[in-house]
Amino acid sequence: MSGWVVIAGLGPGDEDLVTPEVRQALSEATDIVGYIPYVRRVPARPGLTRHETDNREELDRARHALQMAEDGRRVVVVSSGDPGVFAMASAVFEAVETGPDRWRALDIRVLPGITAMLAASARIGAPMGHDFCAINLSDNLKPQALIEKRLRLAVEADFAIALYNPRSKARPEGMGRALDLLREVCEPSRVLVFARAVSTPEEQLRVVRLKDAAPEMADMRTVVLIGSSATRIIDRDGTPFVYTPRSVPE
Amino acid sequence: MSGWVVIAGLGPGDEDLVTPEVRQALSEATDIVGYIPYVRRVPARPGLTRHETDNREELDRARHALQMAEDGRRVVVVSSGDPGVFAMASAVFEAVETGPDRWRALDIRVLPGITAMLAASARIGAPMGHDFCAINLSDNLKPQALIEKRLRLAVEADFAIALYNPRSKARPEGMGRALDLLREVCEPSRVLVFARAVSTPEEQLRVVRLKDAAPEMADMRTVVLIGSSATRIIDRDGTPFVYTPRSVPE
Repeated sequence: MSGWVVIAGLGPGDEDLVTPEVRQALSEATDIVGYIPYVRRVPARPGLTRHETDNREELDRARHALQMAEDGRRVVVVSSGDPGVFAMASAVFEAVETGPDRWRALDIRVLPGITAMLAASARIGAPMGHDFCAINLSDNLKPQALIEKRLRLAVEADFAIALYNPRSKARPEGMGRALDLLREVCEPSRVLVFARAVSTPEEQLRVVRLKDAAPEMADMRTVVLIGSSATRIIDRDGTPFVYTPRSVPE
Repeated sequence: MSGWVVIAGLGPGDEDLVTPEVRQALSEATDIVGYIPYVRRVPARPGLTRHETDNREELDRARHALQMAEDGRRVVVVSSGDPGVFAMASAVFEAVETGPDRWRALDIRVLPGITAMLAASARIGAPMGHDFCAINLSDNLKPQALIEKRLRLAVEADFAIALYNPRSKARPEGMGRALDLLREVCEPSRVLVFARAVSTPEEQLRVVRLKDAAPEMADMRTVVLIGSSATRIIDRDGTPFVYTPRSVPE
């Protein structure tokens, strides 16, 4: 029996946002590999081994998955959201490139999922409805100066911007720095959406103007959406709609 | 009976990439509204009216959907990919904002889908595995100068870049202009992926270096992924893997 590695996206949390393709791969797997809370989203069953690993061990986890596939096992590496967006797919291919040549011949597939920014965008309206970018605010794997350079250029390009990993206990300052920078280069009425744990029972959505935004509105389960200069709020009873128009006039 | 409007993403083409949430909404609908090929992806059944409209009629289509919901119908506006990415969600909220006040009280929900760039990225590896942006190359709704400005700034920020709507019969020049611009500012070995009709029987993937790229490699069913300066090709038998590393060294 020949093994394989599937890197699968479990979406933002709601099981109704998991694609049938991913569901099928999970049902065929002998092994599930990933960060603890994501592995626990896959129910235990006879014949399935669940390997729970801590955060920040992505490359070891990837090598373990590849090694098991080489040994004939059917391995699903799970990420939340989409595995190609600040998640496990890159780590697996880095392990392939730096590993033994025979790993290049393995059956390796990536199965997309609903990524956090698009789940959040859908929930509030269509804030990413025009050109946009996604920036990982964590400085674990890149210099802080590069994050700030990208944020400045993204505002200059007038992209809508999604900030992933805006804040954690280990990195409490990043979101505050990002807001300071935005206040230098954007108008005070710029629209922000703090979207926490979208599609889970802990979901929280907060729409604020830049002048009223605070770093504490984000935590490690939040994605922050920053509108372009054209992004609009439609007031109504309850949470407003937020959208970015499709057109930019000449 | 109270009506509603759901703006739903059908994903890139494969039915196994449609979320259960979207499937459920389609099963409850009385009316499907959208561009002809997307409406035809929803099978006919008794009690369901399928309204097929031409491209470039987004705002009329959105108003029609809202009017039907007001009349008590359960309407699904279908987009391919994700409805919030260069698709129908923005048009519906534009219609809400500019329409009668009572439309703001309607039950309007956006259901996310797998967007083309992430389906394409998954198929080839993880080219969007670091900070990235998405730019609509169509100049129907924005000035060509803005497209070029954004592309320049995106390269300066060293984003991986997804180009949507790179080329159509009505706009044959845009992709050529984009490649000319990229050749001014990127190294000739920059990695590009032309991903056509991903997850359908017509799928085609082509990985090329910038020096070998040609506008004819794209058509209206193609999404073009442009690597960052760090994006790598892993050669092997058949189509190579392409990925962007998670880390940027100091």
